Amino acid sequence: MQLKEETTTTTTNGSGNEKKDFPKEFVDSYKQIKWNGWGDTRKFLHTLSPSGQIAITTPKKSAEPLPGLKPFILKELAGGNGQSELEDTPSIEFDNIQIDPPKSNPEFLKELKAFFLSDQLKDDKFARITHTFGKSIRDLVRTRIGQIKYAPDLIVLPHSHEEVEKLVQTANKFNVVIIPYGGGSNIVGAVEPISNERFTVSVDMRRMNKILWVDRREMTACIQVGILGPDLERELAKSGVSMGHDPDSFEFSTLGGWLATCSSGHQSDKYGDIEDMAVSFKTVTPTGTLELRNGARAGAGINYKHIILGSEGTLGIITEAIMKVHPLPPVAEYYGFLFPSFAHAVSALEQIRSTDIIPTMIRIYDPDETRLSFASKPSKGAFTEFMSAAVKKYLHYIRSYDFNNVCLSIIGFEGSKKSVDFAKAHVFDILAKNSAFSLGTSPGKTWGEKRYDLPYIRDFVLDHNMWVDVAETTVSWANLIPLWKDAKAAFKEHFRAQGVPAWICAHISHTYSNGVCLYFIFVSKQNAEKEMTPYIQAKRLMTDIVMKYGGALSHHHGVGYEHVPWMNRYVSNGWITVYRKLKETLDPNNICNPRKLIPTLQEENHQTPYLFDVLNVKKAKL
Amino acid sequence: MQLKEETTTTTTNGSGNEKKDFPKEFVDSYKQIKWNGWGDTRKFLHTLSPSGQIAITTPKKSAEPLPGLKPFILKELAGGNGQSELEDTPSIEFDNIQIDPPKSNPEFLKELKAFFLSDQLKDDKFARITHTFGKSIRDLVRTRIGQIKYAPDLIVLPHSHEEVEKLVQTANKFNVVIIPYGGGSNIVGAVEPISNERFTVSVDMRRMNKILWVDRREMTACIQVGILGPDLERELAKSGVSMGHDPDSFEFSTLGGWLATCSSGHQSDKYGDIEDMAVSFKTVTPTGTLELRNGARAGAGINYKHIILGSEGTLGIITEAIMKVHPLPPVAEYYGFLFPSFAHAVSALEQIRSTDIIPTMIRIYDPDETRLSFASKPSKGAFTEFMSAAVKKYLHYIRSYDFNNVCLSIIGFEGSKKSVDFAKAHVFDILAKNSAFSLGTSPGKTWGEKRYDLPYIRDFVLDHNMWVDVAETTVSWANLIPLWKDAKAAFKEHFRAQGVPAWICAHISHTYSNGVCLYFIFVSKQNAEKEMTPYIQAKRLMTDIVMKYGGALSHHHGVGYEHVPWMNRYVSNGWITVYRKLKETLDPNNICNPRKLIPTLQEENHQTPYLFDVLNVKKAKL
Repeated sequence: MQLKEETTTTTTNGSGNEKKDFPKEFVDSYKQIKWNGWGDTRKFLHTLSPSGQIAITTPKKSAEPLPGLKPFILKELAGGNGQSELEDTPSIEFDNIQIDPPKSNPEFLKELKAFFLSDQLKDDKFARITHTFGKSIRDLVRTRIGQIKYAPDLIVLPHSHEEVEKLVQTANKFNVVIIPYGGGSNIVGAVEPISNERFTVSVDMRRMNKILWVDRREMTACIQVGILGPDLERELAKSGVSMGHDPDSFEFSTLGGWLATCSSGHQSDKYGDIEDMAVSFKTVTPTGTLELRNGARAGAGINYKHIILGSEGTLGIITEAIMKVHPLPPVAEYYGFLFPSFAHAVSALEQIRSTDIIPTMIRIYDPDETRLSFASKPSKGAFTEFMSAAVKKYLHYIRSYDFNNVCLSIIGFEGSKKSVDFAKAHVFDILAKNSAFSLGTSPGKTWGEKRYDLPYIRDFVLDHNMWVDVAETTVSWANLIPLWKDAKAAFKEHFRAQGVPAWICAHISHTYSNGVCLYFIFVSKQNAEKEMTPYIQAKRLMTDIVMKYGGALSHHHGVGYEHVPWMNRYVSNGWITVYRKLKETLDPNNICNPRKLIPTLQEENHQTPYLFDVLNVKKAKL
Repeated sequence: MQLKEETTTTTTNGSGNEKKDFPKEFVDSYKQIKWNGWGDTRKFLHTLSPSGQIAITTPKKSAEPLPGLKPFILKELAGGNGQSELEDTPSIEFDNIQIDPPKSNPEFLKELKAFFLSDQLKDDKFARITHTFGKSIRDLVRTRIGQIKYAPDLIVLPHSHEEVEKLVQTANKFNVVIIPYGGGSNIVGAVEPISNERFTVSVDMRRMNKILWVDRREMTACIQVGILGPDLERELAKSGVSMGHDPDSFEFSTLGGWLATCSSGHQSDKYGDIEDMAVSFKTVTPTGTLELRNGARAGAGINYKHIILGSEGTLGIITEAIMKVHPLPPVAEYYGFLFPSFAHAVSALEQIRSTDIIPTMIRIYDPDETRLSFASKPSKGAFTEFMSAAVKKYLHYIRSYDFNNVCLSIIGFEGSKKSVDFAKAHVFDILAKNSAFSLGTSPGKTWGEKRYDLPYIRDFVLDHNMWVDVAETTVSWANLIPLWKDAKAAFKEHFRAQGVPAWICAHISHTYSNGVCLYFIFVSKQNAEKEMTPYIQAKRLMTDIVMKYGGALSHHHGVGYEHVPWMNRYVSNGWITVYRKLKETLDPNNICNPRKLIPTLQEENHQTPYLFDVLNVKKAKL
């Protein structure tokens, strides 16, 4: 787990847990990840001197060059205006950030201090700043310029379900806002305090990182939900099992965050989305704890777990979950394929999906993201190996590939050797009939190693006067290509009309019988004032187009406050009324993550602007 | 569909629907099924004279003998006390039933009559009696002796979503109780009016039986939920697709009933339970209609469909649903296997389930139900064919089968030829290693033809002074054999102690990674007063044992009022509080199927007895 097990004492805290479970000195997760960027402090992109090449440094490897990346950024992202250098826009230094002191609430703190150990309660500047935001572009820009308006007044780091119960009860008694904080990787504003009217606690769940039991017979595990992805899978692997949930945020997100936001992992086509894996969980609400029984599928009334899945901390805090697991797959094979065009790739995907033999994962990058993918590889790698002049000629003349349209696809198979071989033969047959060209396992291997790296590139881009954001949705087969075309064209036209460089790409990352997850990544230059208007306009544009094509408001990022303006259009008004009653019932004082998920009545009636439009950055130099 | 399309007129009703959609003369479904028993009026078991053999008559075949059934009933069900004839306990004649006249509510009726056609509103004795109960043993006994206390005052047969909206609004205005009535096959009391305090409408949904569209690309269909199973699959088949939902009640239950009760079909291992098939649906509540968008999986907030799935009409009436479908499987193969014992069969099942290649269906009958299964076949059939003296000898001496312990299993594979062949080879290999003996496809074929017949046998047993009931649950692998043993032993001991003949069997019908559905069928003799106490005691006994082993309160029958006494033990009190608020929000006047699903506060506080204990039959001769 995250905690360094150095020394222990036997002091007990108010919940009766012996402190020996919690070593005296350890490094909390929030101290190990960047306060002003994504991920591990020891992993970052930087420019090599004197070559000017971009390189990546990781805990394992120092300054590995990414030779294709700078030319790609200059040519494609920055608009290809002939400039040879990137513009530096460095982050503020931590010491130069000013935040308001924590609000005073001595009675509340007195009760907490009687129950929690002092090192479970933090209100230093570092803890407060690192628990203010998630990792959206808006979050990073505001952090990087030091515009931190509403830092939480206190960070509480509970160790157990009972401690969360005590915390929530006490907060409710003193009308204190509580915001559950998992890995803080959320990019839709779900963890951000949105006013300073009330004392606000960010509840960092990451010390609740134990696997309580693994049942290999029923293939279930009971898990404290503050556990991070790598810790979860490492500990499960000791019992020979895996949960198989592998979202982009895997390294820095928690089980609780996955449950609260309806997360989905790369291999969801085989292992399901997070709701399929969840058997049951405990949720602490201000009016009491909702518990659910263990056991397989039942048909005895409404299944309560679905009230909490996707509630994003607005109804309470999930503490422990029983999750389905499966034996560690003996075989896991990931292959790369090239298609002559996105339409070819989508057609092959739809043909595969219409059969009853489905791979574990099919990712398809559109031509733009294919180029990004190759440009961000450490060496020329697989692409060059396979795209030798001869192969190139063959593909071009014999198979009529147009290299501007080539799409990379990563297709994975996991399971028993028998089932992998069977599915592979079936899928490869369909691929062959659809002009796919195999690149072997090398691109799959590279994907496996680099699949969490894109946010590090985003940090680098932010360092150089550009911003990056994403929009993802679930869209029907019929609307997939139209949405892909229309959204990309509209985005490009929007910025072209303003004369601002901008770039957009997309990939398909999850498939269903009735559609796919389509994921856009878009980049533009900061405007002169370095404020968020270009981002807000682009996000509005993209979300409106998604809605126009009947897409989901989100496939797996959630709602937070970023998607609230579209909720009335996305879900029925009837449901919003029901949700409000649910909220009133479970959280009568509205202390649980207020103003997230559903518009307030004031927002709905245009008496208050949406946070989406308000939380801007004005006249600030990046 | 069910309606005979004879003549049409162009009269419109209040919803603006042209009457030509609804032929002038037709036979509503409720007129085609038995008022005092299960299923098709033209299908029943009876005794042949002079042989005394039991036979079955169906619309296709008259008086087909079931030679093994009478000896089996006499020996096993009736206690084997040497009697050679069954005791006759015929049903009351319809004309001899007395019910109270419908309550008066002229204002309400006036509003309905202004909107609905006269043939959509029924209050004749036949309509009222056939909409009073479902088909539980308690329902059938009360019908057969004419003890019908609270018949609905009116039956409304809506044709459209808009008509249901009008009905629900009007009912809410006049504080009229509304109970959605699908096929009426429910066996836990879900459709029964439970008092005569308020005017009560049974809403027969079966005229809403149209498929509104089929989308073969997205593999979805939009369907009016009053459609019965056979109509649904026949109409879908015209588009080359199937929903694949095939519960025991298939012939006489509706899509709406399946959704409202969390139904599960025989092939759920492949096609999922009803909640997996449901994309979205419209639900009319007294405070408005909940609508949901079409589209594949999303992660943008709480998924409202799960509030309605399993709500059993207590929050509103589902009217239209978008359901996932799949191509009609080109191959469907069902095989019979014999195992030396239930433990052998369960072990093989668990081994199959622990791999990543699962059949479409695995049913395992315990030794008692295996004997029932063979005893109720039209000829000696497959069993005899295969169990020739030679095979018998081989099995007995070489493979050590004990015929008292033999278990029949039906294992099915559906899909493409490729995937069926692959799964079959894998599963057959595991079966061979677990002492399974193949009977080929003949038992599978018989199962396919006879799979809906058990309730007809129940009617025959009721005709002969016995009662039959069932209990089903989802239980973990670890508790499966202990629950099976303990429940059977406790049931037998309970009646042995009273000196009353009784019989119990069980089968496994659905499998999950973390357990199976275990389904008990039990039979006993009526007691001298012909009242329900023996049933109520047995049902309490069985449900208590299920709870003791951590089983689900129901796997797919639902809650109704029969399972309400266990709900506080089964779900958390927190959730019951939340449900009550949901109910208050959507149905503030409690007009939607009151006293179902969750105990009332009065029941919970023991101020009112549970309906389960109250709705008894006293001193009545069957």
